[in-house]
Amino acid sequence: MSLTKSQVRPGVYYDSVVLMQLQRKLAALPGVEDAGVVMATPANLELLADSDLLEAAGKAARPEDLLIVVRAGSEAQADEALAQVDELLKQRSSGGANQAFRPRSLAAGVKNLPAAEWVLISVPGRYAAKIAHEALDSGKHVFLYSDNVDLEDEIALKQRAAELGLLVMGPDCGTAIINGIGLGFANRVRRGPIGLVGASGTGLQAVTVGIHNYGGGVSQAIGTGGRDLKAEVGAASMLQGLRYLAADEATEVIVLISKPPDEATAARLLSEAQTAGKPVVVCFIGFAAPAEQIGNVHFANGLDSAARIAVGLSTGAITPPAIEPRAGYLRGLFSGGTLAYEALNGLQNFLHPIYSNVAIRNSQKLADPLHSQAHTIIDLGEDVFTVGRLHPMMDNDLRLRRLKQEAEDPETGLILLDVVLGEGAHADPAGELGPAIAAHSKARPDIEFVALVIGTDEDPQNTEEQIHKLEAAGARIFRETTAAVDYVAARLAAAPSAAGKALRLFAEPLAAINVGVESFFDSLKAQGADAVQVDWRPPAGGNEALASILEKMKGK
Amino acid sequence: MSLTKSQVRPGVYYDSVVLMQLQRKLAALPGVEDAGVVMATPANLELLADSDLLEAAGKAARPEDLLIVVRAGSEAQADEALAQVDELLKQRSSGGANQAFRPRSLAAGVKNLPAAEWVLISVPGRYAAKIAHEALDSGKHVFLYSDNVDLEDEIALKQRAAELGLLVMGPDCGTAIINGIGLGFANRVRRGPIGLVGASGTGLQAVTVGIHNYGGGVSQAIGTGGRDLKAEVGAASMLQGLRYLAADEATEVIVLISKPPDEATAARLLSEAQTAGKPVVVCFIGFAAPAEQIGNVHFANGLDSAARIAVGLSTGAITPPAIEPRAGYLRGLFSGGTLAYEALNGLQNFLHPIYSNVAIRNSQKLADPLHSQAHTIIDLGEDVFTVGRLHPMMDNDLRLRRLKQEAEDPETGLILLDVVLGEGAHADPAGELGPAIAAHSKARPDIEFVALVIGTDEDPQNTEEQIHKLEAAGARIFRETTAAVDYVAARLAAAPSAAGKALRLFAEPLAAINVGVESFFDSLKAQGADAVQVDWRPPAGGNEALASILEKMKGK
Repeated sequence: MSLTKSQVRPGVYYDSVVLMQLQRKLAALPGVEDAGVVMATPANLELLADSDLLEAAGKAARPEDLLIVVRAGSEAQADEALAQVDELLKQRSSGGANQAFRPRSLAAGVKNLPAAEWVLISVPGRYAAKIAHEALDSGKHVFLYSDNVDLEDEIALKQRAAELGLLVMGPDCGTAIINGIGLGFANRVRRGPIGLVGASGTGLQAVTVGIHNYGGGVSQAIGTGGRDLKAEVGAASMLQGLRYLAADEATEVIVLISKPPDEATAARLLSEAQTAGKPVVVCFIGFAAPAEQIGNVHFANGLDSAARIAVGLSTGAITPPAIEPRAGYLRGLFSGGTLAYEALNGLQNFLHPIYSNVAIRNSQKLADPLHSQAHTIIDLGEDVFTVGRLHPMMDNDLRLRRLKQEAEDPETGLILLDVVLGEGAHADPAGELGPAIAAHSKARPDIEFVALVIGTDEDPQNTEEQIHKLEAAGARIFRETTAAVDYVAARLAAAPSAAGKALRLFAEPLAAINVGVESFFDSLKAQGADAVQVDWRPPAGGNEALASILEKMKGK
Repeated sequence: MSLTKSQVRPGVYYDSVVLMQLQRKLAALPGVEDAGVVMATPANLELLADSDLLEAAGKAARPEDLLIVVRAGSEAQADEALAQVDELLKQRSSGGANQAFRPRSLAAGVKNLPAAEWVLISVPGRYAAKIAHEALDSGKHVFLYSDNVDLEDEIALKQRAAELGLLVMGPDCGTAIINGIGLGFANRVRRGPIGLVGASGTGLQAVTVGIHNYGGGVSQAIGTGGRDLKAEVGAASMLQGLRYLAADEATEVIVLISKPPDEATAARLLSEAQTAGKPVVVCFIGFAAPAEQIGNVHFANGLDSAARIAVGLSTGAITPPAIEPRAGYLRGLFSGGTLAYEALNGLQNFLHPIYSNVAIRNSQKLADPLHSQAHTIIDLGEDVFTVGRLHPMMDNDLRLRRLKQEAEDPETGLILLDVVLGEGAHADPAGELGPAIAAHSKARPDIEFVALVIGTDEDPQNTEEQIHKLEAAGARIFRETTAAVDYVAARLAAAPSAAGKALRLFAEPLAAINVGVESFFDSLKAQGADAVQVDWRPPAGGNEALASILEKMKGK
């Protein structure tokens, strides 16, 4: 028969490494079958219950209490084990102990290692933002591993950092590689020409591993934390990282990794990626990639694929020549519903806002399909247009009228048409559309005409002749949607917003101050970085009421 | 000064080709500036207004009325033009006129061309379902071009067709290529080993064009209509087409084209595609492809890419060996959040339902992250697990406990773990996970263990040794998420549902009966197909009240 006993220590703080070590030591004591050492959150209590480690005293503990539980063969053995807790807590076996002098505050750590450009913070979330602000005060970049940090704190930290030309990676940033040194969790990989920015820790790890395994190398891998691409944060760190890597001479190819951001953030990031002047591989896992490539932006469907594409590009990367942007709105007048849809699917990533009668997202719904607004893509073959009327692939009348309407709109900058050839279609669409394009071009030389021609060399209309007629009328021709999207996106995408203060470049060798999980300090030293471990403790031993009184006494 | 005059013809029916020709002829008359001939739907009235062709009489017309409008230089010229309408309507200039005998009903058409396996229907939507049922009654496949057909009618037609071993393409099916003959809108393309099923007309056109332009060829291109992949229709035609192409010896590579279907339909289609025994290229435009390839299923990001991949595969297609499916649920216990997310992103396309604490869709939300249900993927590094506890990449305790929990669950069939190596991570995760896997394997030989190891040859843990330990414990190893997803999807995907009555194979040469738009008949003839044009008119001249009385008199 076995017996479970608990000890509750209200409001005390220990480093999680210490708690883990305590649990293991307790479990190894004579007669002890299992042990648990956890903060008494509801989830942790449930986990203890699942391991048959929860009894009355544990159930009564509060989330801020430390709960120590043992299950032993007898009550005496359980008591014996719990009696050793204080002794076991003293035997802290951490590499951090190698350090002769252990500053107790970040300020002291900064004095101890003034060359440090980085501060790593992995204390519990509620203390982390304050330390991160202190780090920014000292002019340091921040690697913020801590999770459970308020979103408002993240926004404030990143705004300040951008103003100061500093970088805040995180909160909840697990991984980075700066100047060849891994921060947090990081694999050892070859140095090379691929720079990464990732809102996902293991995402960044998996892609850097893939790059290494495919024979490539990494210049910098910058983490942002998982919430960076949320609308409220606006991809602050990813935009900063992207600009830094665009400016960095050692970086030839850029990789962006994240879960799919919201549409406005995606459009902002991708527009800016378009102007990076080097290939950018975008891996938004679960994102509907519109194509394999649009301009210099390559879309990867997964982490492994991102690594493979980046390595491929880094050996002989060719950046397509930049296309001069122009003003005005897109008006896409399609006869092919799927072509309209595919064009929208691609262009929505660059042109924002964009509207359509074949909207992919609710926000794109065009109020009146008969009238365009901002960037607009119309499928003229939709049911509303075809009651008692031939499909626009057979009869150009509707399209010619709409073409006139758009060409008379002062906001129109580019008109995109599809011309679908083949059996069943109009015998000479270019013969009708061409003269109209020529006439409108003359009246409105500021409007550009682009035609997407779908046809084969065997089609009854003679594809080559159709193309010739459209070109003669002044239209630029593409033969498949992605190529047209590629061109239109580059032509009409908004110019990137001002980069703000340029990010300070990272000096080598890397030196850092670590506040929190000591194994990160060990890891920095093992990699040859200069580092200091701050022996951080929460104010007033984690007692928040007392801490608040102390703060007030300091006059803050 | 110009003047607009209208003529309203209540409830009359004319083929849209006739209306288009009438409008063009009116516009060409002396003094006429513009003309409109449309059914008086709200959208059409607005279009007339935009062209300055709407006046009082037109505004008063009802949607079922034919509205004829001219704008001319004088009232006399407008009256003169309108007076010629009847005469102009008689001058029908259609290729269909080439046909000596014009049957007036489908039944007569069938007698006229008994070899026809196909009936093409492009009459107005409200008449189309009835004719399609007649075609099925006669044992014919149906190409249903008409739009504005009720969803209930589509479901009923497709259910009947499946029972009869016949195919209903559409409603709103614009394109097909059967035995080298284009139905509806279709480009002329080389014949070859690539078979397609498309829920999108121009999608199917663009991909067949791409295949031709890249040097490939098409065996069959089967349309389904845009609503086929809606949950209510359940991809009835696409599943039928997929099975047909899987069985067809001339087809070596299959391409599926659609907008993204709902999750259950996608999982059903993709599971079935996995068992096709040949490569299947999936092009769901706007779908978040989880990888470039999972097993024999290749994901294309766009129409052009689908064509390119299919042609590549058709010259030297290698189908990965089939993996024997097994019973039980997946339990994925991850330490890497992004790895969990990427695995879910891939597996959700094959395993349904699947749950997670990093759910991508609301329906996937796991009620209690501490307990699995059905297929489950858990990120053990989520905030709820890490309060006061080291990340599972540093401390295996949480995972070892969950592993035990899953190994004791009789529903568990396969346990997937990630092992992330590198700086900052546990010094020997396989040293702790391996023995646990070995022990659980012994107790539950029916459970399979799969480990995803992320690491490089330079990582401090020695990746090779870690892999060896896990393999020795009985785990199957993968080095990147997609490969693991690939294996797990094939192992656990549900067996396809019974195919029902096999689709009757298509005989050559193609022969078809065309009911509706006459240019489709012309096109069939031009392509060398045997065809009959039915001179269809709506019952009672389109007067529905009268038609209903006539139906009753017939005793129906």
